[in-house]
Amino acid sequence: MSQDPLVVFTPSGKRGRFPAGTPVLTAARQLGVDLDSVCGGRGICSKCQVTPAYGDFSKHGVTVRDDALSEWNKVEQRYDEKRGLKQGRRLGCQAQIMGDVVIDVPQESQVHRQVVRKAATERVIAMDAATRLHFVTVAEPDMHEPSGDFERLQKALAEQWGVEGTTADLTLLAKLQGVLRKGGWQVTVAVFQDHTATAPKIVEIWPGLHEGGLYGLAIDLGSTTIAAHLTDLDNGAVVASSGLMNPQIRFGEDLMSRVSYAMMNPGGDAEMTRAVREALNDLITAIAQEAEIDPALILEVVFVCNPVMHHLLLGLDPVELGQAPFALTTSQSLSLPASELDLSAMNARARAYMLPCIAGHVGADAAAVALSEEPGKSEDLVLVVDVGTNAEILLGDTSRVLACSSPTGPAFEGAQISSGQRAAPGAIEKIEINPETKEPRFRVIGCDLWSDDPGFEAAVGKGGITGICGSGIIEAVAEMRIAGILDPGGLIGSAEQVGTPRCEADGRTHAYLIHDGSADGGPRITVTQGDIRAIQLAKSALYAGARLLMDEMGVDKVDRVVLAGAFGAHISPKHAMVLGMIPDAPLDKVTSAGNAAGTGARIALCNRAARAEIEDVVGKITKVETAIEPRFQEHFVAANAIPHATDTFPELASIVTLPKVSFNTSGEREGRRRRRKS
Amino acid sequence: MSQDPLVVFTPSGKRGRFPAGTPVLTAARQLGVDLDSVCGGRGICSKCQVTPAYGDFSKHGVTVRDDALSEWNKVEQRYDEKRGLKQGRRLGCQAQIMGDVVIDVPQESQVHRQVVRKAATERVIAMDAATRLHFVTVAEPDMHEPSGDFERLQKALAEQWGVEGTTADLTLLAKLQGVLRKGGWQVTVAVFQDHTATAPKIVEIWPGLHEGGLYGLAIDLGSTTIAAHLTDLDNGAVVASSGLMNPQIRFGEDLMSRVSYAMMNPGGDAEMTRAVREALNDLITAIAQEAEIDPALILEVVFVCNPVMHHLLLGLDPVELGQAPFALTTSQSLSLPASELDLSAMNARARAYMLPCIAGHVGADAAAVALSEEPGKSEDLVLVVDVGTNAEILLGDTSRVLACSSPTGPAFEGAQISSGQRAAPGAIEKIEINPETKEPRFRVIGCDLWSDDPGFEAAVGKGGITGICGSGIIEAVAEMRIAGILDPGGLIGSAEQVGTPRCEADGRTHAYLIHDGSADGGPRITVTQGDIRAIQLAKSALYAGARLLMDEMGVDKVDRVVLAGAFGAHISPKHAMVLGMIPDAPLDKVTSAGNAAGTGARIALCNRAARAEIEDVVGKITKVETAIEPRFQEHFVAANAIPHATDTFPELASIVTLPKVSFNTSGEREGRRRRRKS
Repeated sequence: MSQDPLVVFTPSGKRGRFPAGTPVLTAARQLGVDLDSVCGGRGICSKCQVTPAYGDFSKHGVTVRDDALSEWNKVEQRYDEKRGLKQGRRLGCQAQIMGDVVIDVPQESQVHRQVVRKAATERVIAMDAATRLHFVTVAEPDMHEPSGDFERLQKALAEQWGVEGTTADLTLLAKLQGVLRKGGWQVTVAVFQDHTATAPKIVEIWPGLHEGGLYGLAIDLGSTTIAAHLTDLDNGAVVASSGLMNPQIRFGEDLMSRVSYAMMNPGGDAEMTRAVREALNDLITAIAQEAEIDPALILEVVFVCNPVMHHLLLGLDPVELGQAPFALTTSQSLSLPASELDLSAMNARARAYMLPCIAGHVGADAAAVALSEEPGKSEDLVLVVDVGTNAEILLGDTSRVLACSSPTGPAFEGAQISSGQRAAPGAIEKIEINPETKEPRFRVIGCDLWSDDPGFEAAVGKGGITGICGSGIIEAVAEMRIAGILDPGGLIGSAEQVGTPRCEADGRTHAYLIHDGSADGGPRITVTQGDIRAIQLAKSALYAGARLLMDEMGVDKVDRVVLAGAFGAHISPKHAMVLGMIPDAPLDKVTSAGNAAGTGARIALCNRAARAEIEDVVGKITKVETAIEPRFQEHFVAANAIPHATDTFPELASIVTLPKVSFNTSGEREGRRRRRKS
Repeated sequence: MSQDPLVVFTPSGKRGRFPAGTPVLTAARQLGVDLDSVCGGRGICSKCQVTPAYGDFSKHGVTVRDDALSEWNKVEQRYDEKRGLKQGRRLGCQAQIMGDVVIDVPQESQVHRQVVRKAATERVIAMDAATRLHFVTVAEPDMHEPSGDFERLQKALAEQWGVEGTTADLTLLAKLQGVLRKGGWQVTVAVFQDHTATAPKIVEIWPGLHEGGLYGLAIDLGSTTIAAHLTDLDNGAVVASSGLMNPQIRFGEDLMSRVSYAMMNPGGDAEMTRAVREALNDLITAIAQEAEIDPALILEVVFVCNPVMHHLLLGLDPVELGQAPFALTTSQSLSLPASELDLSAMNARARAYMLPCIAGHVGADAAAVALSEEPGKSEDLVLVVDVGTNAEILLGDTSRVLACSSPTGPAFEGAQISSGQRAAPGAIEKIEINPETKEPRFRVIGCDLWSDDPGFEAAVGKGGITGICGSGIIEAVAEMRIAGILDPGGLIGSAEQVGTPRCEADGRTHAYLIHDGSADGGPRITVTQGDIRAIQLAKSALYAGARLLMDEMGVDKVDRVVLAGAFGAHISPKHAMVLGMIPDAPLDKVTSAGNAAGTGARIALCNRAARAEIEDVVGKITKVETAIEPRFQEHFVAANAIPHATDTFPELASIVTLPKVSFNTSGEREGRRRRRKS
């Protein structure tokens, strides 16, 4: 008895029998195999390419003969001539099943293809963008059955793609009739349907088959810098990345000074809103130019940012965030037209998504880190620290996740440091101090040589050493502590106490000279006692926040630490631990996640289910408010010592022995300064 | 055995027993009695006023004692002192049930109160506005349970009013924090929730209890005039009505000339869109001033208009409506932010609703007429004719409803008539011609006297007679036919043929002189042969459209005729029938519905269920396209005669005998001119 041919799809393993002559795409659809198609099987979009396999497949119990698929037809030949079909590939909508066959669906033909985030962590993103393209044939108008062009387009989308109840705004309707007629009643539409209950919306329409692609932006809107990744919504590829300074800096370096600006100047919040939106438009224009795409092809944007930036971007006055009880206007995620944010540089009907905020001090950026690093899916207890002007801290495992933010201030970014500067060529980023001679050697950004390597001066050039960046100052302070230049209380010893002329008198305190460029007209780069105090304040705040979460969790140690933030990538785990920035942990359990907030934004951009996921996760996170927790002050004071006044660091001790020194001869009390919030 | 007190509500008749001390409002809610409340029982909004009845009520089996309700409490006393409580009234939220009682809920305390549309037809509108006010107490922020102010407002609305899942746009969120704090965490919100699946949306917020009211606009956007009714959304009262000329007239008097303008001038459609939107803003500003209300209290607008005005208002190019197949961009109803129509004069978050179009030539105005006149609910067969520049015609009964539009042109409005003018003071609106003497007498708008009454000239003044309006010309032509001045073919006889010098030679044809004001420097008002031809074209089109629907329905007569349109109110049924504008029917079965389209707009404004209803009704209407129906031309030609070449008018004949005259001595062929469409 003859049976219908058997078709087996790989990698899914889905299989079924179909009458001879069934197109591969039809079989795939009926079996629920993830095989892409924009044109709906008309042989013009080439998205449904498959690779048939021939021969014996005992694993599948199938023998595939050479004639298992129909011969190449004219459509495939024409496509191959015009654009070239890869060796062994067929168009799934044209090739018909004639005998038993094994069909492989390559990654790029899958709708829900997976994209590797980056080599470092091998994190994959499954594609499931909210905006999708559909090619449709629309019925022509009929006077005897009058209906609007839009109603016939709706019907076509429902019948040909199962997309029911689409909507469109007036600007789309205004171009509808022209495009339908230009395309001869065949058009491609971009349909936006996210994870919310909102009806699918037609956001763009092109005559015929649109082959120009579709893009989205993942934007990490920081207090200091704005970083954007232009992403192909079809395959998740980042086609361009760009960034610029946040122009709000002119209203205040840190968040609280911007809140003050809004408080003191009527209309100041609107001024800052305008500034950041203008900058975003500039950024969008620039990134589209860089990628050589029409900015009108950018149909989505996802934002992550802290609560103050969140409010200022959305046009909400941030003053309530500057004082207890730190009430957000809204904490939930937002899905809205990008035009409401005046983002006119992208498509006029583009959509914007803002991740939810966790609390008044713990923003959408922290939510994005949670989405990227998934502490709630970790079997061991992980501490995730996103280091910036504010540090966002997450602690958790599969049982629960806690979050807080801690006001570290800008010291970790090189600001408020005497020789500090932003990470840019000429900035010292790595430093080692010889414990015997107390002599430093260092590297600067933009040069691979160490300062004691031959040719360093030539390579760097005159005046080429300009300051110390954030990671440089952390290393410098930690190395000073290891070399016995700094005591546990944070005092720099005198030249006599330390035994090097590099410890210079600086008023009533001392400073350590790293580099003297004054002979060449360059700067003298020192670490002053004031710099040490600034770093101590910052690291105490960070550590105290982490400790508070550990108290709440009822633990004294964590299994691993993830350093996130653009800056986190450059911090050496050993130095961070010598400084007591983070709790003691095995060094190989301290890793960097790079810009985890930016990664979270990209995940939310590429996968709408991730939006639902993070909204759910954020709802379950336990928020800890550092500003009202009395223990925060206790932890903060105890963390002032380097590495710590009371907590032991056994893992650190196993690899570094810190010298027992004390330079406190004068009863100096400066180190006991408290910083208070609000 | 003692029982809980019994409470009987009137007029609903709902009854139940409640423990002594239960507030009347609580009892009403539990029984599902329609008793209004904005403040939710806090004794501040006074919406829940009730009238207790005392004494024996054998009908209800209840005896109500004087102490059936609790004594007046402080809240009621304070309210009475400040604002005065009507005699016998109590506040339902304060008065407690202490014994058996009968409680009447007066009309104004019912949410779904009924509003009489107008005395003429006694049509009632049940109130069920899409925008409602709710007073809520919002939880204050808590650092230990961080959530946004908006999320706590959402929760309050869900808990206190059962309104779940509200949304808000950024402009509302931007004022939220300030209003919540100003109101001491008590605010009034306006929530928009129409008949669609869209989530309820907070469109306005006020600190404390808002008592300034809430308004909506019903706008009939005609080709020539724009009429607006400002309506109180709480009780349906029209608080002001206003109108202005459609400024698009400068781009073309009739619809097709505006479509031509858009076709011939790139950007011409946008120009016309801008013009009408500016006019609407002027109208909104003026009507709010007239009513002495803040225009920001206008939160809804409902539009009815023909398809070309529909497209031009929405910013859609109308060119496709100027040629077969007359494809609308969209035919379904639209619910959208009024800001998308640039209606900045009203609240920035106001909502607009546009009724659905029936077909490319039969617009939202015809749908509004269907909503107002409800032919589909008529037991007898009714013909509804909305007479304007285009006539919209509906024919139906409970079995089915048919619709078409017919291009009557502007003659019925006094345009393209030699002495024609718009309906304004000085225009002849009524005329009688003595069949014996052939002498006319008439009345002009603005004067109650007939022209042969003593004192007429003094009352009208010099040059006070300026022309003939639309209803005047119809009467004039009909009276000329009755008086034997005009023959059935539409020819005006000569002075000799008719026997009066008022029949003057006018080139190769004749004109009938109604009034000669030239001695006083005023106009000579005549009806020319050209005027007769214009009226013949218009009435033939109207009659042919009606006949086409009768053919489709398979009938030769209708049971009744409704004349709609502002103009319809002024047409005398007898004259309309002498002219053959409408099919023969008993004169008492020909009624006027006034501005039925405007009434339909008001119904849709006040009652969201009516929106769902008309969308459903429109979907079931059978559309007949006059432009492609060969029988339309046949009917048109046959209807050229006055009243008709072949159809008999037995009902008309029973009251008027038309003289058998013929003035065609020259083989004049002018009367056979055809008008063709596209």
